[in-house]
Amino acid sequence: MATTIQPISPAAVDELAALRLELADTSTVELAEELPRMDLAEQALRFRLLHKDRALAVFEELDPVHQQELLDGLKTDFVRELLESMETDDRAKLFDEMPAKVATRFQSQLSASDRRTTAQLLGYEPESAGRIMTPDYVSLRASMTAAAAIERIRHLRERPRHLDVLPVVDGHRKLLGTVTLADLVSADPDTLVTDLIADEHYQVSTDTDQEEAARLIQEANLIALAVVDHEERLVGMITWDDAMEVLEAEDTEDAVRAGGSEPLERPYLSAGVFMLARKRAVWLLVLAVSASLTVTVLNYYETYLANVTVLAVFISLLTGTGGNSGSQASVTIIRAMAVGEVRFSDAFRITWRESRVGFLLGVMLAAVGGPVVGFVYGWDIGLIIALTLLVICTWSTFVGSLLPLVAKKVGIDPALVSAPMVSTLCDATGLLIYFSVAALVLGPVLTG
Amino acid sequence: MATTIQPISPAAVDELAALRLELADTSTVELAEELPRMDLAEQALRFRLLHKDRALAVFEELDPVHQQELLDGLKTDFVRELLESMETDDRAKLFDEMPAKVATRFQSQLSASDRRTTAQLLGYEPESAGRIMTPDYVSLRASMTAAAAIERIRHLRERPRHLDVLPVVDGHRKLLGTVTLADLVSADPDTLVTDLIADEHYQVSTDTDQEEAARLIQEANLIALAVVDHEERLVGMITWDDAMEVLEAEDTEDAVRAGGSEPLERPYLSAGVFMLARKRAVWLLVLAVSASLTVTVLNYYETYLANVTVLAVFISLLTGTGGNSGSQASVTIIRAMAVGEVRFSDAFRITWRESRVGFLLGVMLAAVGGPVVGFVYGWDIGLIIALTLLVICTWSTFVGSLLPLVAKKVGIDPALVSAPMVSTLCDATGLLIYFSVAALVLGPVLTG
Repeated sequence: MATTIQPISPAAVDELAALRLELADTSTVELAEELPRMDLAEQALRFRLLHKDRALAVFEELDPVHQQELLDGLKTDFVRELLESMETDDRAKLFDEMPAKVATRFQSQLSASDRRTTAQLLGYEPESAGRIMTPDYVSLRASMTAAAAIERIRHLRERPRHLDVLPVVDGHRKLLGTVTLADLVSADPDTLVTDLIADEHYQVSTDTDQEEAARLIQEANLIALAVVDHEERLVGMITWDDAMEVLEAEDTEDAVRAGGSEPLERPYLSAGVFMLARKRAVWLLVLAVSASLTVTVLNYYETYLANVTVLAVFISLLTGTGGNSGSQASVTIIRAMAVGEVRFSDAFRITWRESRVGFLLGVMLAAVGGPVVGFVYGWDIGLIIALTLLVICTWSTFVGSLLPLVAKKVGIDPALVSAPMVSTLCDATGLLIYFSVAALVLGPVLTG
Repeated sequence: MATTIQPISPAAVDELAALRLELADTSTVELAEELPRMDLAEQALRFRLLHKDRALAVFEELDPVHQQELLDGLKTDFVRELLESMETDDRAKLFDEMPAKVATRFQSQLSASDRRTTAQLLGYEPESAGRIMTPDYVSLRASMTAAAAIERIRHLRERPRHLDVLPVVDGHRKLLGTVTLADLVSADPDTLVTDLIADEHYQVSTDTDQEEAARLIQEANLIALAVVDHEERLVGMITWDDAMEVLEAEDTEDAVRAGGSEPLERPYLSAGVFMLARKRAVWLLVLAVSASLTVTVLNYYETYLANVTVLAVFISLLTGTGGNSGSQASVTIIRAMAVGEVRFSDAFRITWRESRVGFLLGVMLAAVGGPVVGFVYGWDIGLIIALTLLVICTWSTFVGSLLPLVAKKVGIDPALVSAPMVSTLCDATGLLIYFSVAALVLGPVLTG
């Protein structure tokens, strides 16, 4: 045996067989979770061992960032095959995330028609319904019978991924409505498609906001939603699974913003330390600058602090509590707005409710805190703390509920009103309340 | 004309006709949003004017709290009809929210079989897959041909709401897999159902956690997921629309908890002021008690404050900034855990990354804040503030990323780690850092 040729050792063959078995035992979802945690060579090895259909399913499950990584580790012909088999909207999303140069290189490998449909989707505004619709659908004519429609589906050359809801169009591709496959199957074969069109008709336009389209799909329990152009002609369908993804991404954005950070727009572990820092730096700086208001307030009252040092002892407790009650109110209102339970027109009702909630909470904290502080630090200090807690809670809860409403009114996403922002804004005003109450109770002792 | 009988005036007839037209022009989703904002009589009037199918569709869109309200305003026979037409899982949810007495009264109005299936669902643990599955499904036998399966579907006496994914069982009701209606329709009529079973098989058990089942539906893009009992026998299906609802409810819980409040479990406007206060009171009190740690720390350093009063001026700025950077880290990690991007086994990697992120942010704030403070308050104070910002940012970001991981480890929902909790915990430690740095820089001036 020539020594220059390395035969595959029986051990290696066994190992591959074992790996193949292991892969067969792992579900697509689990694989899509595990792959990005391996190094590129390991990922590529496993990927090549998968059956073609399965490889595609796993690939489509991956985040665009991880898809791109994996493509770098695969052979060109395999890459082309993968890209061509992807759903058009998923492919558009992947290209959108790539650096333009890389995207162009990959796009050039696609067939002319795939290139065209991808480019079409990429032509719509980011975050628009046009971007997430699939142009691969089967449409029916209103004048067909149910039997003819089923025959048409049965004899499709290329079967689109989704067939559960089928759009019905007229001779000019104008959308007339949708029928479900279940209705087609259950109907008498001679029934006309026009008689099976769902009573309730929903559609969006290509430039509708993605989140709006996704919420409609969720609220109206649609499996697929038709997308039309400005002439009301059918151009695509948004399916429920893409809607779920959009809503999850929106919820992630809202959740992260609630903590005062900008969304990463990629999986956490694939973001570098500098990127993580950058996503937080601006807000942290803005908040710190706003927080310097507290420095101004405290500076202004420095004589008070010098005269009655014990007042300084409660600064963090009081501002912290104000921030907490404000955050509680703001997240509650922001979420209620996000899921459509309240609107700006409810503003008066909401802030009035919240002020009373804040008052109740203030009464509770004052009843607990006042006596304890009074016992340890003297009854005048106890009174100051009790009164301050009462006013701060009412005020912060009011402010916390008002801010998201104001944001909505001036056209900012209410989710940008973060807990840190509310507590920062409540800090300075809380201190003003504190020292005003103290001046009222202590009088000349403080100011003297 | 007898004066005792009030004829319906032509004006009233016109009004009803106008209302009917208006209702016809409003979509189900819009109606379900508007109804709960009207008083009960207005709701009931509109509801009775709707076509029966539409009334049911609107009713199913409503939150259980609003459903219950509306039932009180409707006639008994209409109520029975509505309840009988509801999907079993939605009906179970409604009964679950009602006071036991009311639920029993309504349940007694149901047919024996509807009563049985509802009771069955209510028998499963709250938050379990059993509670949200529908027992109304059509199952197929593996040995059937595609044509026979379609015939069976076509001739069903009662058509279940969902037919897009059909479970396949053996003679003992053991689940063998699922086929899609689209595959059945597209297949050659003589193909056996067993050959159409999806390669990838997912199922959950009745006691699987709802959120886990819903995430599986989302991640594997399933239209419906089969639920089996402990003998692997099919007992129900969970559909994608119910999964979306579960995920939205979970996201609402997480969002509200992130702000330090307990979830309302009902629409915001239908919760009273006392209920809102109660949902926040415990956390606010717990946090205020924890915040009293800051009082202890400040009390301990009171001599420092008396000696160098200017130190008090920066308390809120520093603790606020610490709380902000801690919140930024915790929400990012909590969300990454919720969507499955990171796990406890990544703990070391995460905290190490976050510490470096915190350090970078601290450097930035120190570089901005140190010189400004130094210029106004003197260079020693500037140095103290710069150093403190650096250490506090690193420390808070580390703590903020660690807390959700620790929660997960000890079996608490990481979403319970709220922004207010993180900032409260960072406040006391931040003050310790502040005074230690100050003692280091100022030495005997401070302590003397």
